Amino acid sequence: MKVLSEPARVRGFRFAGVSAGLKTAAGAKDLGLIAAENQVSAAGVFTTNRVKAAPVVIASERVSRGRLQAVVVNSGSANCFTGKPGLRLALNSCAAVAAELGCDGAGVAPCSTGVIGHLYDFEKYRDGVRRAAGALSEDGLEEFARAIMTTDTRPKTASATLRLGGREIAIAGAAKGSGMLSPHMATMLAFIVTDAAVTPAQLRAALKGASASSFNAITVDGDMSTNDTVLAMASGAAENRALGERERSLFAEAMGAVASSLARQLVYDGEGATKLVAIRVRGARTRADAERIARRIANSPLVKTAFFGCDPNVGRIIAAAGASGAALDPERLELKVGGVKIASRGMLVVGALQAAQERMREREFAVELDLKLGSGEAALLTSDLSFDYVKINAEYTT
Amino acid sequence: MKVLSEPARVRGFRFAGVSAGLKTAAGAKDLGLIAAENQVSAAGVFTTNRVKAAPVVIASERVSRGRLQAVVVNSGSANCFTGKPGLRLALNSCAAVAAELGCDGAGVAPCSTGVIGHLYDFEKYRDGVRRAAGALSEDGLEEFARAIMTTDTRPKTASATLRLGGREIAIAGAAKGSGMLSPHMATMLAFIVTDAAVTPAQLRAALKGASASSFNAITVDGDMSTNDTVLAMASGAAENRALGERERSLFAEAMGAVASSLARQLVYDGEGATKLVAIRVRGARTRADAERIARRIANSPLVKTAFFGCDPNVGRIIAAAGASGAALDPERLELKVGGVKIASRGMLVVGALQAAQERMREREFAVELDLKLGSGEAALLTSDLSFDYVKINAEYTT
Repeated sequence: MKVLSEPARVRGFRFAGVSAGLKTAAGAKDLGLIAAENQVSAAGVFTTNRVKAAPVVIASERVSRGRLQAVVVNSGSANCFTGKPGLRLALNSCAAVAAELGCDGAGVAPCSTGVIGHLYDFEKYRDGVRRAAGALSEDGLEEFARAIMTTDTRPKTASATLRLGGREIAIAGAAKGSGMLSPHMATMLAFIVTDAAVTPAQLRAALKGASASSFNAITVDGDMSTNDTVLAMASGAAENRALGERERSLFAEAMGAVASSLARQLVYDGEGATKLVAIRVRGARTRADAERIARRIANSPLVKTAFFGCDPNVGRIIAAAGASGAALDPERLELKVGGVKIASRGMLVVGALQAAQERMREREFAVELDLKLGSGEAALLTSDLSFDYVKINAEYTT
Repeated sequence: MKVLSEPARVRGFRFAGVSAGLKTAAGAKDLGLIAAENQVSAAGVFTTNRVKAAPVVIASERVSRGRLQAVVVNSGSANCFTGKPGLRLALNSCAAVAAELGCDGAGVAPCSTGVIGHLYDFEKYRDGVRRAAGALSEDGLEEFARAIMTTDTRPKTASATLRLGGREIAIAGAAKGSGMLSPHMATMLAFIVTDAAVTPAQLRAALKGASASSFNAITVDGDMSTNDTVLAMASGAAENRALGERERSLFAEAMGAVASSLARQLVYDGEGATKLVAIRVRGARTRADAERIARRIANSPLVKTAFFGCDPNVGRIIAAAGASGAALDPERLELKVGGVKIASRGMLVVGALQAAQERMREREFAVELDLKLGSGEAALLTSDLSFDYVKINAEYTT
């Protein structure tokens, strides 16, 4: 299996990204389209926020049938908290795509990201759809990735290729994130396509596993958005034979690799992020305990500002772990930052802090906490909390 | 009842605050002492963090007997994550106080706040205790309040006086907080003394109620510290008659007023805080739901940066509420910021945002969310998330 953080060609899909004038910045791309040649296997994972944007309501209902032909995504407006007019707008948006592609409107899934509480201009949107349909290309995934960006500073794509069911198959994806990334994929959109011939149920199983270890294992600020969506589509153009159990697991693994690459890029480009920090907890009494501790550490503003300041702050990390409610014995735990053991058996390791501080000056490092109580493990990727996080979020407005 | 955000004289107690050289800044006060004339009724509330500092372990054990004679508090070191040497240090510190006061060491409760993982210098501490014992004064509460500060920018005191059980009684308190304030009183220390004659059980009940509606209803950054302590002592010097049921409730109310004044000062002086925001949730299905929503809103970095930017960001507030997991119907809720209705029945209120933005320029305002689902209510005080929060916490070091 070959995994790249760039697109690969996936037979049976075409992509486009154009400027429809929905964003304030003139000329910025803000409308993306993915189209298959006909209805293909599809699966989705959506936000668990109780407030769901209109496109989430519609896309989740449509993908539940297991078939889609196209996905249309706009940035600039989340079409959330927009009541019935928002639902109508999302339905009309799908109909506009169906009219251009000459397909059934029910085979189109809508996604939106951007400011909450505002409707986008449908005339502009429809013009954009027309231009996007005209620009569709097998090589358009990068342009698509660009069109779905909000405060992202760069487009995010990834791909994997592997031999499966007697054929060379490809999986490629694009994602946007940046702010509001967390516990369950907050304001994160990701789209994964493959030419593998798989059933909707197989695609759903692979996507679920891939999301759990990637998009649901990253956090930038602990918030969960109203619009989070991950969609997968499989064209079957690779014409592989039906996958056996082992091949299904290889397929899921490849999809996981694409999702993980995208997730990593999301954290790397988190709002104002200057650090990419892997939080690894082991030795917890249970897996759930490990996860609670990892999330608490990863989301603590005090820990994250210490990351920004390259400060191996044992106190804040241990205090966050202790605040999680999970079982923990300070007299037993061991803590490493950047590979340097800085706490052990209830005490700081004398003289280790300076070495840890050096390691924290790098762009990426790990925080490893071993509780020595059991076999529960969890890992999360997170970022630091910088001046720019505050700047971006104090100025990005309603 | 008269409530002031300044000290009142409380018969039967003397206070001191001196510089023992435990803080880096030369001459900064860092050792505070409260002494009664003999063992008096005492009660305490402590951190629920699984990692508890050595002084917390000892103070909670001692106060559980319901009697204390003195409280000694140092800033500059939290004496947490210091293993057995930390416990010995805390015990020796109490013994030093007992020697100076000529009392039983078991009647002294220790508290520490500051950097985690380091022991303070015991020689300096003992010298400080000697000077503090010599400086004890009935008017020393303000100096005591100054000695317990860490990143606080000003000392925090409050008092209440009322007629009870045939006598004029006084309640006074001091607190420190600033960073790491939350869900359950993170790195917050508060001390409340009264001359009322009450039993340990009555004092405990009053303190518990007072803490729930004050120290446990504020949040600056969602973190919970290893050292949080609230201690109350009652000298009985007012010689009031035993309190009946109605009088006990008046007493609890007065203690609640002192605690609330201190709590409010803590948020007002939260690290880098430029806003004091009351989050009020009503109409939730249950009280627990209301509390979950209020905490989620109050702790959301995206909401807090919007407060800093004076941005009436409906989307972030609603998304945080929706992410709490509590029951919520976006089509029914109503949201006011600064008294201006900005969202209603699933939509923004057209033209209201500018008025709300004006109100948010003030130092204090309220966010009121009515879910219209039931009768659950909760209120929290919080602050914004500013550049200075990041600056203070990226630079304050291990």
